[in-house]
Amino acid sequence: MRTRDQYFEDLKKMRKNVYLDGVAIGRDDPRVIKAANVIGKTFDLAQDPEFEDLLTATSHITGEKVNRFNHVNQSIEDLLKKQECIRKLCNLTGGCIQRCMGADMINGISAAAKDVDAAHGTNYYENFINYLKYFQENDLIGAGSQTDPKGDRIARPAQQWDPDQYLHVVERRPDGVVVRGCKVHNTIAPYADEIIVVPVRTLKPDETDYAISFAIPADTEGVYMICKECFYLEREDNLDAPINGYGDLESMTVFDDVFVPNERIFLNGETEFSDRYALGFALYHRHSYTGCKPGISDIIMGLTALLADYQNIRKTTHVKEKLAELISVAELVYGTGIAAAYTSQKVSSGTQVPNTIYCNVARRHAGHNIFHEWDTLTDIAGGLCATLPDGKQFNSPEVGEFVKKYIRRKEGVPEENIWRAYALAQDLLTGEYSSVTFQVAGVHGGGSPVMEDIAILGNYDLNSKIENVKHIAGIKD
Amino acid sequence: MRTRDQYFEDLKKMRKNVYLDGVAIGRDDPRVIKAANVIGKTFDLAQDPEFEDLLTATSHITGEKVNRFNHVNQSIEDLLKKQECIRKLCNLTGGCIQRCMGADMINGISAAAKDVDAAHGTNYYENFINYLKYFQENDLIGAGSQTDPKGDRIARPAQQWDPDQYLHVVERRPDGVVVRGCKVHNTIAPYADEIIVVPVRTLKPDETDYAISFAIPADTEGVYMICKECFYLEREDNLDAPINGYGDLESMTVFDDVFVPNERIFLNGETEFSDRYALGFALYHRHSYTGCKPGISDIIMGLTALLADYQNIRKTTHVKEKLAELISVAELVYGTGIAAAYTSQKVSSGTQVPNTIYCNVARRHAGHNIFHEWDTLTDIAGGLCATLPDGKQFNSPEVGEFVKKYIRRKEGVPEENIWRAYALAQDLLTGEYSSVTFQVAGVHGGGSPVMEDIAILGNYDLNSKIENVKHIAGIKD
Amino acid sequence: MRTRDQYFEDLKKMRKNVYLDGVAIGRDDPRVIKAANVIGKTFDLAQDPEFEDLLTATSHITGEKVNRFNHVNQSIEDLLKKQECIRKLCNLTGGCIQRCMGADMINGISAAAKDVDAAHGTNYYENFINYLKYFQENDLIGAGSQTDPKGDRIARPAQQWDPDQYLHVVERRPDGVVVRGCKVHNTIAPYADEIIVVPVRTLKPDETDYAISFAIPADTEGVYMICKECFYLEREDNLDAPINGYGDLESMTVFDDVFVPNERIFLNGETEFSDRYALGFALYHRHSYTGCKPGISDIIMGLTALLADYQNIRKTTHVKEKLAELISVAELVYGTGIAAAYTSQKVSSGTQVPNTIYCNVARRHAGHNIFHEWDTLTDIAGGLCATLPDGKQFNSPEVGEFVKKYIRRKEGVPEENIWRAYALAQDLLTGEYSSVTFQVAGVHGGGSPVMEDIAILGNYDLNSKIENVKHIAGIKD
Amino acid sequence: MRTRDQYFEDLKKMRKNVYLDGVAIGRDDPRVIKAANVIGKTFDLAQDPEFEDLLTATSHITGEKVNRFNHVNQSIEDLLKKQECIRKLCNLTGGCIQRCMGADMINGISAAAKDVDAAHGTNYYENFINYLKYFQENDLIGAGSQTDPKGDRIARPAQQWDPDQYLHVVERRPDGVVVRGCKVHNTIAPYADEIIVVPVRTLKPDETDYAISFAIPADTEGVYMICKECFYLEREDNLDAPINGYGDLESMTVFDDVFVPNERIFLNGETEFSDRYALGFALYHRHSYTGCKPGISDIIMGLTALLADYQNIRKTTHVKEKLAELISVAELVYGTGIAAAYTSQKVSSGTQVPNTIYCNVARRHAGHNIFHEWDTLTDIAGGLCATLPDGKQFNSPEVGEFVKKYIRRKEGVPEENIWRAYALAQDLLTGEYSSVTFQVAGVHGGGSPVMEDIAILGNYDLNSKIENVKHIAGIKD
Repeated sequence: MRTRDQYFEDLKKMRKNVYLDGVAIGRDDPRVIKAANVIGKTFDLAQDPEFEDLLTATSHITGEKVNRFNHVNQSIEDLLKKQECIRKLCNLTGGCIQRCMGADMINGISAAAKDVDAAHGTNYYENFINYLKYFQENDLIGAGSQTDPKGDRIARPAQQWDPDQYLHVVERRPDGVVVRGCKVHNTIAPYADEIIVVPVRTLKPDETDYAISFAIPADTEGVYMICKECFYLEREDNLDAPINGYGDLESMTVFDDVFVPNERIFLNGETEFSDRYALGFALYHRHSYTGCKPGISDIIMGLTALLADYQNIRKTTHVKEKLAELISVAELVYGTGIAAAYTSQKVSSGTQVPNTIYCNVARRHAGHNIFHEWDTLTDIAGGLCATLPDGKQFNSPEVGEFVKKYIRRKEGVPEENIWRAYALAQDLLTGEYSSVTFQVAGVHGGGSPVMEDIAILGNYDLNSKIENVKHIAGIKD
Repeated sequence: MRTRDQYFEDLKKMRKNVYLDGVAIGRDDPRVIKAANVIGKTFDLAQDPEFEDLLTATSHITGEKVNRFNHVNQSIEDLLKKQECIRKLCNLTGGCIQRCMGADMINGISAAAKDVDAAHGTNYYENFINYLKYFQENDLIGAGSQTDPKGDRIARPAQQWDPDQYLHVVERRPDGVVVRGCKVHNTIAPYADEIIVVPVRTLKPDETDYAISFAIPADTEGVYMICKECFYLEREDNLDAPINGYGDLESMTVFDDVFVPNERIFLNGETEFSDRYALGFALYHRHSYTGCKPGISDIIMGLTALLADYQNIRKTTHVKEKLAELISVAELVYGTGIAAAYTSQKVSSGTQVPNTIYCNVARRHAGHNIFHEWDTLTDIAGGLCATLPDGKQFNSPEVGEFVKKYIRRKEGVPEENIWRAYALAQDLLTGEYSSVTFQVAGVHGGGSPVMEDIAILGNYDLNSKIENVKHIAGIKD
Repeated sequence: MRTRDQYFEDLKKMRKNVYLDGVAIGRDDPRVIKAANVIGKTFDLAQDPEFEDLLTATSHITGEKVNRFNHVNQSIEDLLKKQECIRKLCNLTGGCIQRCMGADMINGISAAAKDVDAAHGTNYYENFINYLKYFQENDLIGAGSQTDPKGDRIARPAQQWDPDQYLHVVERRPDGVVVRGCKVHNTIAPYADEIIVVPVRTLKPDETDYAISFAIPADTEGVYMICKECFYLEREDNLDAPINGYGDLESMTVFDDVFVPNERIFLNGETEFSDRYALGFALYHRHSYTGCKPGISDIIMGLTALLADYQNIRKTTHVKEKLAELISVAELVYGTGIAAAYTSQKVSSGTQVPNTIYCNVARRHAGHNIFHEWDTLTDIAGGLCATLPDGKQFNSPEVGEFVKKYIRRKEGVPEENIWRAYALAQDLLTGEYSSVTFQVAGVHGGGSPVMEDIAILGNYDLNSKIENVKHIAGIKD
Repeated sequence: MRTRDQYFEDLKKMRKNVYLDGVAIGRDDPRVIKAANVIGKTFDLAQDPEFEDLLTATSHITGEKVNRFNHVNQSIEDLLKKQECIRKLCNLTGGCIQRCMGADMINGISAAAKDVDAAHGTNYYENFINYLKYFQENDLIGAGSQTDPKGDRIARPAQQWDPDQYLHVVERRPDGVVVRGCKVHNTIAPYADEIIVVPVRTLKPDETDYAISFAIPADTEGVYMICKECFYLEREDNLDAPINGYGDLESMTVFDDVFVPNERIFLNGETEFSDRYALGFALYHRHSYTGCKPGISDIIMGLTALLADYQNIRKTTHVKEKLAELISVAELVYGTGIAAAYTSQKVSSGTQVPNTIYCNVARRHAGHNIFHEWDTLTDIAGGLCATLPDGKQFNSPEVGEFVKKYIRRKEGVPEENIWRAYALAQDLLTGEYSSVTFQVAGVHGGGSPVMEDIAILGNYDLNSKIENVKHIAGIKD
């Protein structure tokens, strides 16, 4: 397995196809490094004896130790460990762990490819296993890329007025295919080694060019990563905090006629399997959310309780009720995620697939509650979470003492602690990194709530409930 | 194991201490028989090969096959089976299965009594095991009785202006104790063989007389069961339906100086263990709710889908969204119940205790959503769920044809089916049995939502969340 | 104006076309009388000096004093008085005042008919004014009848497989028309003097036979009222209470080829005005809901507060929060109803029409919260609201003293008062009258929440909001 | 009345007591000017014939035309105009209009001071009227300052371990008093001419030093404004938009032993009137929220509808439902605000005071829904609201064309328009200005939801509801 330093060294060598401020930058740009810091953590902890059990697994293809994020789940235990690992890492970094993008993608493909081969005589699963071996041995970072821009939302892929709104094959060669299009909202892509692509939706038989799945190096010719940076506000040195060392680059990843060699192709035109790839990634990613979302809730509830404590209102009834509500959201999601693992099943390739219904109701519940949790933190924090003077004011020889005096709360709590707690609240409530990765991604990541509704209704045995109701109502037919 | 008939025969022999309309009635009164019908089902199915696996278990004390409701859980698998069994029985009977009252009570006592003995040198666990053997061998029905009237809600038991508002010991004899007081909201008691009592709350050291747990025959001298009957409206013969064969008697069970022999006592004055008995029953009962509440939700969602189908709106967006919401409530509760079993732990007596946090967040979520589910059924059903003419009108030679004509919905659905579906909706939405056992008990049974808040906050490791937040905020102290 | 006695005398003379239990009954049947009791109250109070200002108005056509429910609103003040009057009457009777059905219908027709005449040269408004004069002078009760069975919900009126699922003209004669069909969910109809009919929806040009509005005596030949009775449980004499003197009969009103004379026709084929009639009644009725729904909320919040007081928890934080929520629902609805009156406008006939947006958002808010209010009452009441032993048990020489003892709460509150308060809670939470008229009608009466969504979106100037957003976003086009 | 330019000229002359980045800055600092831009708008529009009616009023003391924000309301019409004016200005500027801080403060004091004089023989009302004349004639901007830091939340003002956590009098002189303390969350203060202070809460008789209300110039010796800046991200010139021209400075306003002359004192020690001042400002401010909050909702709903339109999903059911919900929140708040004005009452000074209950239920509803509205916008916008590449990427010769291509939605919508609409969503959802002034202030401004609960319960006649319930339940006592 790589070390954090090796990872950053490898990033540095890549072709400059990451764009910020309208120009190409190297992957040694400080903004890339800061955003990649959370990935660095996954290398560090994998080599830390305390976290080794959580952060590593044994490859089912090589028997070697691999990073858990590069592992294809083989058992209930694997899924439970993944869930636990993600929650723990979100706790430690105070945010999105990002690396699950690649993990969920390899699991989704692993669960589907063998069935395509069985139906069509293709060799996608072999391609995939060879790729996985390379991926695991080199301890790579994969950017799972699924979401197309989708253009006009009521037109199908092939009916878009701009035909490139869904990524598609524009040329077929003996040695591979050329693809054109774009994948959006690509967290992690600017500091990933590889991009792994699957279709975004169910396809019809005549939409073969859109049924394409593959993996390529992230700096392949023709790939452009047009990024949006999301960081918290800069801190004064003496007021710096672990959480402020993290951030995120979101990428609009353009494929401007990019060549993909045959051995890197995992689906190519078998439209009836498109949903297996699309929903496969989504399913694993929703299961990951049953770990990360409670991990974020842990931060929110912990901070809410801490601020309540500093204000000396921790034991008031309305605070207790709100804490119980925060806990309930987190543990319903996590508990149902456990159920998803416990009732998971093996598919043809031996890959362990979590329960669709439990994954979706859990992810849905998380998505429906994220803004409500923010509301609760705001409620208990009070206005200072918005109006807290910044570190320069806190440090100011002219007014710093006033700042310290008038943020005082319960006797005995050092003023710097109060400032730090409110500054965290301010980062969470008004900072860009938080709004992007907790709020918006909290609603849409892994599929918006409406996508979970669709998944639930598509997989739930509602008819058996109807039949039972007919029985107890005495309806025969 | 007994048969349904043996059970009803045994009921018939009991002393007349059940009261309806202000007078004592026999347990062969048609109202008792109707209410006990659901218990009969638990005898029938235990002997039905299709349900044997669900409905029976192997006693850990005798190795004999016993009804699952008389079994003390010994494993994760036991807890999962119990949960599944309860959901299934609620589906089949369209309502509350009731017998879990006894099951949860024996489990709660089994989990606590051995620790009292270890601390005090008492022999409660031996008493309990002897009792359990008798209970299992005779396949008895136990009425778990916990809730005292509680009088003035801000006064403690010993400070009540009426000292009997919490059941307590009024006389101590060499061979036992005499108790006085009342247990309320006792579903099942009027057709149970035994009453099993535990305290309702945490007690202080000087409240010894209130720290009492025991079991006695339900017709013991001095016991009065003052009942409230809850049935659906009577049906015409040709329009009868399975669900209308069930009902419930709720009992205010008075203990008017009742003697309890020593061998039937499971706690007697050890106040610091009172909460173990009180919360032990509650915990198992909340876990049972993770089975029964989704079972009721199954009925609501099935009927909602059926009525939507009859009206030809099953595929409209707003119906689908609402069905997804109903499913989500049910499966979050059930899934988190699975997690409660999966993370359950053995205690000193070998009894398997489900996870407190998962049981409570699941029960809480169920309680917070029950009226919302009713709202959804009402919304999709439309006004006819309230205004449907009854069976006499449907059967009327004078106006029956009009009724049939004007309840028509989608072409091809027999009018009787539509009437039956709406009649079920009417029973559920406007019937007394449903209001009592689904709505009010759905909120309060096993503990009101506020009790779950207390249980959650009392058991959750919120401090570790605070410490983690301090870490990422850079707060050292 | 009539007295209560004259009203009941007039009812007695009517043809027997009311059906209960499958047979025709006279309007002097005790069930009709009990249901009509609330109407009696509107006669009594109109002659009570204390309520005269609220209950009466001055007819704009005759200048005579008329019952406010028979008045066509002419001013902001009229609408505010109507709203206040309805809330007050709901308070006094503890339930639905029912007579607004006729009031809202005459107002809706009055607001629309003149415009039909202007467009088509018809004389519907003259017909209406003549009818109104008769209606006011005889102080009649009108049953507003709008809702058709509607059969297959996705088929239009003329495309139903059963052509009578929407009431329609089946024969046109020189002196009138013959209609066939049915109007459902007709509260008040079995004890109304007159039935007043309007279409239920917008119609297309070829649906002329469905564009029909008229008024006829309630016992006209061919009219059948197939009723559903909704009462609270019977009380023992010594425990009787005012609220138990009320009830409701809901009617499925069949028009089996009923002749309507020309002078009683208010719309006949002018399809483009169908929505004016349909939505006109609905609009006034939704405005009435801004009075009655807060009136019901008054009962719920009053009882919640009373039970909290009896239990001695009135001042606890969670009770106060829940009371604030109950008040907020009531006063948002009532306040927005005031705004609807304050921003009302006169139409061509001089009729004062309340503001569409405010009426609809208020009614919608009421409908979305009704089950939530029930939930709150259940929450604070505790389980006794379901399991309270009935009056026969309370009065029993054998067990009555036990009942009295164990329903005790705060010291000093007479046991009968506690029983009465809980009995009211039991009626409200588990009684049929309440479920039908507060819960189901609370959701659907005057139009289900989804109908208000449609009305809101159809009338709101959302485009101006879009234009404003374009402006501040710098979008020009 | 002043012009915008005169206002900015006056600001420039003030003493440098505004702090950013830890140092004192002039009020001609670009950040102050940008934040003050919204105040400039209130000067501009007051002189614009189209808005004159909304933006100006006639002074009740001089008969001169004054800016509406400097007017003391004398009638229902005044209150309605104020509400309408605020909503309109929020629409035009896309945000908080800020100047109501001063308006609500002068109205609150005007409603209370005369009664203090009547009780104590003081001359506060005369002081106030003289001040008001000066305030109106010079068309000044007032910063309403009420919220103290409050330190330990369960300790009263005089019991704080740091005695300055509530602003208080530290010295009494013949010509005035010296005050020490701090007022926090002071929107507008850094670019106001005057600071107007009232107590934050009800006081006990021995808390006289805290019962202090006064007005002083904002740059008075001893006053320090320690600010937090809140702006949207900078835009490229060609992509600038009106909304990006606005912002906000929040001030922690320190009073470091500041002298207040007698003629500027409006309350000084009359503790029993403290709540009249505290709640008076709050009441007017909550009424202002019934204007501004719907004004912000207009932006949210307009943008939601615009983005739905660009994506071609405007007519889908789930979008329509969500739009109806957004409209309902806005119009319930606005409608109930109308009711608050319509039922307002004159007090002794002639000041028109809006209805307490309606103001509070409306503000409460707004506060409870703000995060839900953000959730809805996020839901409909999709992930691009977070990941939109910025203006430099849009303008980039290297990748700009890719950005334009892959943000395309419905055919025919210019790409710049789509970018602008999503950039506005990004500002609103992830920008600091929005998080501070819409979200946090949307919850806490004018009083957190819990403060409205307290105000509602303190003023609502719940006893009459209890009495009515007793009546219908037959309870006599």
